[in-house]
Amino acid sequence: MELKGIYAPIPTPFTSDGSLDLPSLRTNLDAWTRSPLDGLVVCGSNGEQPFLEPEERALLVRTVRDRSGSRFPLVAGATQPTTRGTLELARRLADAGADALLLLPPHYFKGDPEGIRDYFVDVADHAPLPVVLYNMPANTGVNLGTDLILSLAEHPRIRGIKDTGGDITQLTVLCARRPEGFAVFCGSGNYFLPALAVGADGGTLGVANLYPGACDALRSAFREGRMKEARDLQHRLLEVSDAITRRHGVPGLKALMDHKGLYGGPCRPPLRPASPETVRRILEVDGKAHLDEWEEWRR
Amino acid sequence: MELKGIYAPIPTPFTSDGSLDLPSLRTNLDAWTRSPLDGLVVCGSNGEQPFLEPEERALLVRTVRDRSGSRFPLVAGATQPTTRGTLELARRLADAGADALLLLPPHYFKGDPEGIRDYFVDVADHAPLPVVLYNMPANTGVNLGTDLILSLAEHPRIRGIKDTGGDITQLTVLCARRPEGFAVFCGSGNYFLPALAVGADGGTLGVANLYPGACDALRSAFREGRMKEARDLQHRLLEVSDAITRRHGVPGLKALMDHKGLYGGPCRPPLRPASPETVRRILEVDGKAHLDEWEEWRR
Amino acid sequence: MELKGIYAPIPTPFTSDGSLDLPSLRTNLDAWTRSPLDGLVVCGSNGEQPFLEPEERALLVRTVRDRSGSRFPLVAGATQPTTRGTLELARRLADAGADALLLLPPHYFKGDPEGIRDYFVDVADHAPLPVVLYNMPANTGVNLGTDLILSLAEHPRIRGIKDTGGDITQLTVLCARRPEGFAVFCGSGNYFLPALAVGADGGTLGVANLYPGACDALRSAFREGRMKEARDLQHRLLEVSDAITRRHGVPGLKALMDHKGLYGGPCRPPLRPASPETVRRILEVDGKAHLDEWEEWRR
Amino acid sequence: MELKGIYAPIPTPFTSDGSLDLPSLRTNLDAWTRSPLDGLVVCGSNGEQPFLEPEERALLVRTVRDRSGSRFPLVAGATQPTTRGTLELARRLADAGADALLLLPPHYFKGDPEGIRDYFVDVADHAPLPVVLYNMPANTGVNLGTDLILSLAEHPRIRGIKDTGGDITQLTVLCARRPEGFAVFCGSGNYFLPALAVGADGGTLGVANLYPGACDALRSAFREGRMKEARDLQHRLLEVSDAITRRHGVPGLKALMDHKGLYGGPCRPPLRPASPETVRRILEVDGKAHLDEWEEWRR
Repeated sequence: MELKGIYAPIPTPFTSDGSLDLPSLRTNLDAWTRSPLDGLVVCGSNGEQPFLEPEERALLVRTVRDRSGSRFPLVAGATQPTTRGTLELARRLADAGADALLLLPPHYFKGDPEGIRDYFVDVADHAPLPVVLYNMPANTGVNLGTDLILSLAEHPRIRGIKDTGGDITQLTVLCARRPEGFAVFCGSGNYFLPALAVGADGGTLGVANLYPGACDALRSAFREGRMKEARDLQHRLLEVSDAITRRHGVPGLKALMDHKGLYGGPCRPPLRPASPETVRRILEVDGKAHLDEWEEWRR
Repeated sequence: MELKGIYAPIPTPFTSDGSLDLPSLRTNLDAWTRSPLDGLVVCGSNGEQPFLEPEERALLVRTVRDRSGSRFPLVAGATQPTTRGTLELARRLADAGADALLLLPPHYFKGDPEGIRDYFVDVADHAPLPVVLYNMPANTGVNLGTDLILSLAEHPRIRGIKDTGGDITQLTVLCARRPEGFAVFCGSGNYFLPALAVGADGGTLGVANLYPGACDALRSAFREGRMKEARDLQHRLLEVSDAITRRHGVPGLKALMDHKGLYGGPCRPPLRPASPETVRRILEVDGKAHLDEWEEWRR
Repeated sequence: MELKGIYAPIPTPFTSDGSLDLPSLRTNLDAWTRSPLDGLVVCGSNGEQPFLEPEERALLVRTVRDRSGSRFPLVAGATQPTTRGTLELARRLADAGADALLLLPPHYFKGDPEGIRDYFVDVADHAPLPVVLYNMPANTGVNLGTDLILSLAEHPRIRGIKDTGGDITQLTVLCARRPEGFAVFCGSGNYFLPALAVGADGGTLGVANLYPGACDALRSAFREGRMKEARDLQHRLLEVSDAITRRHGVPGLKALMDHKGLYGGPCRPPLRPASPETVRRILEVDGKAHLDEWEEWRR
Repeated sequence: MELKGIYAPIPTPFTSDGSLDLPSLRTNLDAWTRSPLDGLVVCGSNGEQPFLEPEERALLVRTVRDRSGSRFPLVAGATQPTTRGTLELARRLADAGADALLLLPPHYFKGDPEGIRDYFVDVADHAPLPVVLYNMPANTGVNLGTDLILSLAEHPRIRGIKDTGGDITQLTVLCARRPEGFAVFCGSGNYFLPALAVGADGGTLGVANLYPGACDALRSAFREGRMKEARDLQHRLLEVSDAITRRHGVPGLKALMDHKGLYGGPCRPPLRPASPETVRRILEVDGKAHLDEWEEWRR
């Protein structure tokens, strides 16, 4: 499995009573299969990972694998509070068909970098799947620093990082110093182009749930040296991306999906649905971005 | 149930293979029963709450209730990521004999104060036990502000707060403006005396697992206006308290318990045992504080 | 000179064209002389220190000394960006009649604790007056930690600290471990009582510009073990204190002074005058606190 | 005057007794004149601006203008604590030959965004030179947000921003939404390439004091779509840039200049000289970057 390209961190569809809505997931998958997406992250932050039981995570991965076959590499969120719980979940996710594990650092008890290192190493040593580090300081309050990441990158079973910290200097240092075979992914569509410019292998982009075509066009423009076009696409993606991630979160993403022919649906409480005013603002931002022309697969 | 006095947030004893060690818990309880402690918090941060399954939490509360009867009011940590999960756990904890629920705010997805309010209100409306708010920004990255706390304090089923934020101004505002019947507890032995000075009803103090006698002596000195004595006790408690909370965490607390005739034992990974060097430093701090004379119950 | 008791960090009066208004300063001084204040801080943060030229600072100190004679110990803000500039200013302030220097750490260029130590030591070694450290992280972005403070406290010419950091644990550690003769002052009326409780020698309190009588009554109640009365006074002082410091700053303090028979007047731009709405809110808070009965000197 | 391209924020040379060393400044200028630099920032952070008196700033600008004629546009640091002081300094700097003013927001007293806006507008309205905003949150503790910047960008005399905040998303938003004629400069060589990728007009880069040729080569590679070459240059520049800015500051920059044929010299205390160990590490980083081949002008 190669970590490369444009990944969507897919949201988890729920019915109105809060249970998993697998038929809607399948419908979304059929659409994404027609899109230029390169891979999927299941049970990440956009998948409301803290709200999912281990058995639900396995069921989601199994459903995605069964429906989409080998179309996508599947990275599955495997974070659990204990090392043992993470390993148990890892085994379930492997059985269900995942290709790699996405792992946050332990973060309720803070202040022990050696404990963070041990956690990743223990899981990488014993889990049946390779590990992708997940740096998400806005949610965890913990920033994985470059020294720790680069030291973990030497582990043969730790294969990459999704860095959502937003520090482009850190991302550049990682790209410059990482060992061969360790993938660097940016974790937000807010800075996909600058991440590519400094050498990132790809991105796990919330906005790619809706605009993988535009993301792909940005990447092609970048690769072919059409920088003005790439920049213009980044400017337009940024406005939508920011609205459905930092500003309005998963409820915002789901609301926009509901308006664009995909299934978004409700979040699990305590996440609240986007208010009508929020939805209005998101649709306004989305309308101004004029990005639908790249998304034939959604029609 | 009245929230008042000195509570110990008890650690959860584990065997070397990581399972619950209920016999050791009972041994500790028998000791605490002889102490001047007023109440217990089970499955709080010192109880490694994020590492405990719902069924384990119920079993811990049941064990404490069975062993200590009505000796202590029991506040049980009931935080779960979803509202539904919190309510399910609340029912189990009520069945197991808890008197109140200790609830962190939702904190993985940040930035929605209304969502935090709704969560507490939903649980307070539907749970079988009264709610105690738990403000722990160092661990959660979320600070419950005074306006939110005071608005929640109007709810008849929200009965108090354990504030571990360390902002004495906020604690004072809460004491000054709270409605009758809403208890304010400080959440650290680092500032038990200043908290009493500004009007707190009590404290949930990690250091009270070992030094409830000294905490009680401080409180008596304060009540009787022997401020110099109270201050001297606070100075000495602070050094130990800081060592086994902020500085060295639950592993530090457990290590010191192991050296003082109680059962500490290992934490669940990814928490790592205190290193020999750390233990040496904790024992040095503890030795210099000369606090054992107040702890007849431990002999 | 002994550092002890209740100090007012006096604001600097300006005329409407922004020049020093020494007659109004003298009028205020005559009033404060009748109050129970123990000392004055001239050219501190409430004195708009960054906006004052060295010659203005000297003139302010000279004016205060001439008008109030030996009634008050005078601590003068001597911070300048360079070590050399600080020493030059220190000499002027000494000539003008100051008793001690209040010194912020260097803070534009951050991240060199040894540089901070060197700065304080260089000034203490060569200045003609003793030094009082000034910890004000909200304004400087630099927190002086306990280890650095306690190490500086060993210097025979560094005689105390005004700590406005708001961390009661840090204040307690300082009180517990400081060498004899090193004074610990809290820097805000928000937590004067808890600071006394943990052993502070006094406070430099913005609110003491207006309510030194209430501050003095709080201190007496504390000393005599009337803790309920002390607490009640703290609760009332806190509301006013917070309004004229953290919430509305020097413009808020000056506005309230203008309403209470002292001279406040305008700040120097870019500080803007308190808006009418802000003034209304401050007066409301002040009215509810009912603190004027302790302030005979102001009538 | 057009703001565009690669600017060096030049350090201020001092003699060993701390006075301005204008001959050394002229020597450096003669070298920079031969380099591909597009412009200079005088009296910025790298120029130790807080340590310079107004008359010194004027003398520095005059010296640079006299020596380098019209070779470079000159942006001069004009920040003073008061609005009045800033305007007085602005007039001096205009007389001395500056082309534009670089202005930090007021930052000792925090928390009044309207006050920040008023300050910039007052100076822009009345100063004899156009204004460039300077966002430097690491030093000031104040982040100018995108809404404030974009609103100020509408002022006809506010002509650009040097953003050293390091938030690539903010930089992208500024590039996407700014009005015509408002320049966006990145303020660190750590992320020059990503800044160009999202549309920045140039950079004020500490590393450009030493490596303007490499910066220029990066820009050319970027413009001509040779992204791999641009990325490789960014990776190498980053290591040096980070060492002489965030990690070791102005003392580090000056030390490296002393080793590369330019005049660095001492900083003004309280800034301390780089330790021998620090210098050794900087030289090691510099040696590994192999950037000298682009710097014919320095030979």
